[in-house]
Amino acid sequence: MEFPERITIKSYTITVVPRYSETDQGGMVHHSVYPTWFEMGRTELLRVNKVAYKDLEAAGFFFVVAELHIKYRRPAKYDEQLLLETDCTLVTAGRIEHAYKLIRKEDGMLLAEGISTLACVSRDGNVRRIPEFMYPA
Amino acid sequence: MEFPERITIKSYTITVVPRYSETDQGGMVHHSVYPTWFEMGRTELLRVNKVAYKDLEAAGFFFVVAELHIKYRRPAKYDEQLLLETDCTLVTAGRIEHAYKLIRKEDGMLLAEGISTLACVSRDGNVRRIPEFMYPA
Amino acid sequence: MEFPERITIKSYTITVVPRYSETDQGGMVHHSVYPTWFEMGRTELLRVNKVAYKDLEAAGFFFVVAELHIKYRRPAKYDEQLLLETDCTLVTAGRIEHAYKLIRKEDGMLLAEGISTLACVSRDGNVRRIPEFMYPA
Amino acid sequence: MEFPERITIKSYTITVVPRYSETDQGGMVHHSVYPTWFEMGRTELLRVNKVAYKDLEAAGFFFVVAELHIKYRRPAKYDEQLLLETDCTLVTAGRIEHAYKLIRKEDGMLLAEGISTLACVSRDGNVRRIPEFMYPA
Repeated sequence: MEFPERITIKSYTITVVPRYSETDQGGMVHHSVYPTWFEMGRTELLRVNKVAYKDLEAAGFFFVVAELHIKYRRPAKYDEQLLLETDCTLVTAGRIEHAYKLIRKEDGMLLAEGISTLACVSRDGNVRRIPEFMYPA
Repeated sequence: MEFPERITIKSYTITVVPRYSETDQGGMVHHSVYPTWFEMGRTELLRVNKVAYKDLEAAGFFFVVAELHIKYRRPAKYDEQLLLETDCTLVTAGRIEHAYKLIRKEDGMLLAEGISTLACVSRDGNVRRIPEFMYPA
Repeated sequence: MEFPERITIKSYTITVVPRYSETDQGGMVHHSVYPTWFEMGRTELLRVNKVAYKDLEAAGFFFVVAELHIKYRRPAKYDEQLLLETDCTLVTAGRIEHAYKLIRKEDGMLLAEGISTLACVSRDGNVRRIPEFMYPA
Repeated sequence: MEFPERITIKSYTITVVPRYSETDQGGMVHHSVYPTWFEMGRTELLRVNKVAYKDLEAAGFFFVVAELHIKYRRPAKYDEQLLLETDCTLVTAGRIEHAYKLIRKEDGMLLAEGISTLACVSRDGNVRRIPEFMYPA
């Protein structure tokens, strides 16, 4: 596989529609689902930069979540259209930071915000430098 | 790791208590959770036979579900005590079959029944013979 | 909400792309994920028939899985494009049956097949007749 | 149901054993699983205080996660014994805070730390005061 010379797109928005299996008996999306959506946001932000995350893994770069912070403001409900905005806010040799906003499409209401820090490890779990093409120009 | 000479225990019962995250907005455990419980039942049936499933994987034996059949008779609810009985009903060189009964502890009510067929593959996904110590005596 | 006079579309195909969180350490999608995809297939088959499943629930019709049968033929992998074909094969007053085919888009390979039976219950879990507009013409 | 006069136990440790379905293809437990373990820790901390969370819901008190912060220090692996310590660090009329430590039993290694804030809502999602018996003496 090939990687681009430099990642240039810093922000991307995807649509997420909560699945029935993602709800709980409280009648809303369970809070443990949001990290999986954030991960999808990162994957698609990479993809618009012409990088498939699976190619990074195939090249021996595994990204692991080192820190995660989520504020849940209003419940997300089954089958509603949500917009998830993922911003890459920092890239260094040692970590990548993203910020997330989850917005209800119908009325623009902010449902949740998040921040994550990723580290890069080898297949064996040893810390390694983040590939240079992922740094800002 | 070491494996026993022969697997001798054919049936084992574990207690399962549904987690909040396993419920859905219908107020019961989501039907996709049962296969994960059946897998736990198989793991513990192996363990009473002195086999850790992770040791099987470390030795290059990966067991994959080839077929699964579940009858959902009555809903399982959050935080109730359930008994999951796992029976190993067949082992051949090519497949292992299990039968499951999920029973509400409080009143002995049968909530669900299942049957699964496992195949054995190598780390690369090629079919391989099931290790001989897993066959019946 | 309003429901159509009669459901007329019997089959629908959606695209599914396995999420990272849906994989397991065996390197493939965990077998418990397929039922959640089948549920998505049913939801979208309803939607092309102008029915939102959440409106059915709001009207007091809850559909629960009574039986599920899955054959896993080849592993589904992270981030590959899959086609899920959902066919409604039977509707009576007491149950709805669907058949599923999961196909790898790249080469048309059949990865899995499934059959499910749904029953209809009220919010309190009592069996009720399936709404008439869901029967075949 | 009855609730105790006052909650007195502030900290509790449960054992968690990662399920196969909780791993991902990176070979470790997926980071989205930890919030579900934290929730189990809170449930068991309530239980040693003679409170079943389901009784709180039945009485119209739903606790929702308003904020969550997790530091992932080392990966958790399939089928290893983990200790999850849950501390209730603050209770006011408006929120409950907990701190979590996830420790590998074998060597006492700290794998993760977390903090959560819960709010209390009615079945309809309106904010309500946390029941008085949950406040510190």
